[in-house]
Amino acid sequence: MTEPYELCASDAIKQIQNKTLSIHEWVLSCLKRIKEKEPQVKAWAYLDEDNALNKAKEYDELKSKDKVGIPFGVKDIIDVANLPSGLGTKFYNHNIPIRDAGSIAIAKNYGCITLGKTVTTELGHRAPGPTANPNNIEYTPGGSSSGSAAAVADMMVPICLGTQTTGSVIRPAAYCGVIGYKPTYGDFDKSGILPNSPSIDTLGIMSRSIEDISLFRSILLEEKNIILKNIDLKTIKIGFVRTPNWEDTDNETKNNLEDLFNNFQSDKINIIELNLDDIMNASNKLHIDISGYEFKRSISFERFNHHDQLSEVLRNGRLNDGYNVNNDLYQKALKELNILKNKMDLIFDDFDLIITPSAPGEALKGLEFTGSAIFNTAWSLIGNPCLTLPLFKGKNGLPIGCQLVTKVGNDNQLLSYSKQFHSLFI
Amino acid sequence: MTEPYELCASDAIKQIQNKTLSIHEWVLSCLKRIKEKEPQVKAWAYLDEDNALNKAKEYDELKSKDKVGIPFGVKDIIDVANLPSGLGTKFYNHNIPIRDAGSIAIAKNYGCITLGKTVTTELGHRAPGPTANPNNIEYTPGGSSSGSAAAVADMMVPICLGTQTTGSVIRPAAYCGVIGYKPTYGDFDKSGILPNSPSIDTLGIMSRSIEDISLFRSILLEEKNIILKNIDLKTIKIGFVRTPNWEDTDNETKNNLEDLFNNFQSDKINIIELNLDDIMNASNKLHIDISGYEFKRSISFERFNHHDQLSEVLRNGRLNDGYNVNNDLYQKALKELNILKNKMDLIFDDFDLIITPSAPGEALKGLEFTGSAIFNTAWSLIGNPCLTLPLFKGKNGLPIGCQLVTKVGNDNQLLSYSKQFHSLFI
Repeated sequence: MTEPYELCASDAIKQIQNKTLSIHEWVLSCLKRIKEKEPQVKAWAYLDEDNALNKAKEYDELKSKDKVGIPFGVKDIIDVANLPSGLGTKFYNHNIPIRDAGSIAIAKNYGCITLGKTVTTELGHRAPGPTANPNNIEYTPGGSSSGSAAAVADMMVPICLGTQTTGSVIRPAAYCGVIGYKPTYGDFDKSGILPNSPSIDTLGIMSRSIEDISLFRSILLEEKNIILKNIDLKTIKIGFVRTPNWEDTDNETKNNLEDLFNNFQSDKINIIELNLDDIMNASNKLHIDISGYEFKRSISFERFNHHDQLSEVLRNGRLNDGYNVNNDLYQKALKELNILKNKMDLIFDDFDLIITPSAPGEALKGLEFTGSAIFNTAWSLIGNPCLTLPLFKGKNGLPIGCQLVTKVGNDNQLLSYSKQFHSLFI
Repeated sequence: MTEPYELCASDAIKQIQNKTLSIHEWVLSCLKRIKEKEPQVKAWAYLDEDNALNKAKEYDELKSKDKVGIPFGVKDIIDVANLPSGLGTKFYNHNIPIRDAGSIAIAKNYGCITLGKTVTTELGHRAPGPTANPNNIEYTPGGSSSGSAAAVADMMVPICLGTQTTGSVIRPAAYCGVIGYKPTYGDFDKSGILPNSPSIDTLGIMSRSIEDISLFRSILLEEKNIILKNIDLKTIKIGFVRTPNWEDTDNETKNNLEDLFNNFQSDKINIIELNLDDIMNASNKLHIDISGYEFKRSISFERFNHHDQLSEVLRNGRLNDGYNVNNDLYQKALKELNILKNKMDLIFDDFDLIITPSAPGEALKGLEFTGSAIFNTAWSLIGNPCLTLPLFKGKNGLPIGCQLVTKVGNDNQLLSYSKQFHSLFI
């Protein structure tokens, strides 16, 4: 028999509507699963069990379709009222906001239930938390939304929120084997989220089904459930982008994606090779300057008051990048970014969808390094919506993702294409 | 004899360096001035006297040029660690952040001393706080940075920080008769500031001298003091923009600006009429959609948890604007905004500086309405740096400002032009 924690949210909601499941049973099942798996996986920075169970009971009694009762996890750089925002540091246990982040308030208003805060890397940068990859706990879950990806992958919760400035939603989702979705830049509200680089930061969703991504997206946008369209992939034009870093990917990633490319061509799907090396190389350079400059400013309180408590990788990484950029260079970089945005828009005049790696391969062994975001940087910077599907396996048996990308603003199309695409593999 | 509170910061710092003034004397003088004037003007939401005096002593003892000791006021939607962030509401006395906003942390690190939090309108929108215009307390100080403008105008403090989403720095500065500066969009860090509309919100500075604006700008950018250049106004090209709302301005504003235009022409300064009606009308429309949509999201916690405590003007104003916009329309509006940004950039290829009204006239009688931002909307939306100079007087004897605007990114030029321009009138 399927345990409630195994259900994706869309299916659980159907069972609740059919009265074969209660919200309380669903939440309780997730909490039991967490109890069982958390000692190994360490996905949670803070659990809010009592409140979650109380809310579940309240919504069961209400019997209102407007209170969906979806349990979800929240990356610990996103404020939830009255829960600690540890921000992935050891010195913020006493940081307890009294306001929900905008997107959390919206989700709660729709009856979503916060189970707690999920582990983030230090201030959303690279220094890892304790979380392990649930597929094999000797391997990294990726970062910075480490706990969110691991919690969804380990079926502790159907949906988690993460954020992406470089590759922090797509990469951990790919490493843990779940669906990760980073919307168009600006699509979801970011108030109450620790800024890393406000010109790039994007709130994203992780889940185990496209339907759940679409459902939670419609909740966060406060719009009626966006209907996923059935798309015949033969009616769209797909670009296959190896990127300038193709040689840095492992063989399984390369082989699986090349097979996919060849099979699609054989199946008369309109997929052609697309070279974006120039724009991607330019993006990688610009991303360092813009994210460095903005990160340095955003974490000013920490660098002046907690400098010695910050990790070396933070001080020598993005913070140091920031010290190398002055306001003149930053303003120029923003102008160059605008040019890149326009260029990418023109590229998508000719392509409906791009397929490209989500990460250089499966998750790396050890928890010290959360992996490379080289396949995510350009999309984060330029603001395109992207989604990773857990389609393949690596040589160590860990998941490998395939990344789908559409034009800025075409999020609904991305989700519909992804559903169709995913259905070919399951 | 000049009292220390009367000094602009640049002059006080010179006296401190010459040992004719101590930081403690300066801060004490400001606090005494506040004690004297605050009962009528009501510029402050919270005063932090003891901490300010302690810091002043500490920096006096340090005798370091790296701790300038400038007392400043902070609009109460900007977080200062361990001080209440009331956000212009009655229900946030217990909202006490433990982190400084990025820009506050930067200013403090340079030895600037927070005297306290200044009154803001409700959540940075239109419902006024108790602040009165120090030129005549029967008149509005403007908003939303009401307390900041009034405190600087009344010489309670040399410098205050405000924020602008529509006209919330320029208008109150103009109404109170101080210099207000809204930099290029994105120029100063905004982390730890309540977002109204993140695509537009900008942190700005109010002071009584251009030198102080330039000094505080260099502090917030963590760059060496930007040197104001001496500019011969005959070497630049100036556009005189009446705007589509010229007929809505009062006679004193119109006459003074027309005189200025004619005098400049007689003086062989290269000033010509520039019609931006199309771009300004488009901006006014777009601003409603973008700021409404983003504001509705940013204050989600308040609309779901404190709805009945919010003012009618907030609920029927920007919040209602937001309910009229869906994500599709919002994404389209952002694209249109990009087009407007490019158009405005092209206009500034032909003009070094634009001169235009700061507000429709002098401050209005009564404290209920903070005035129209119609002369600020386009610059806020498109992101141009702008500055208001208190050049004229209205028929009630209250100040009238003149607004100077340059191309996005040309903030240093704006400050240099403004200095030269100001020197013609003082």
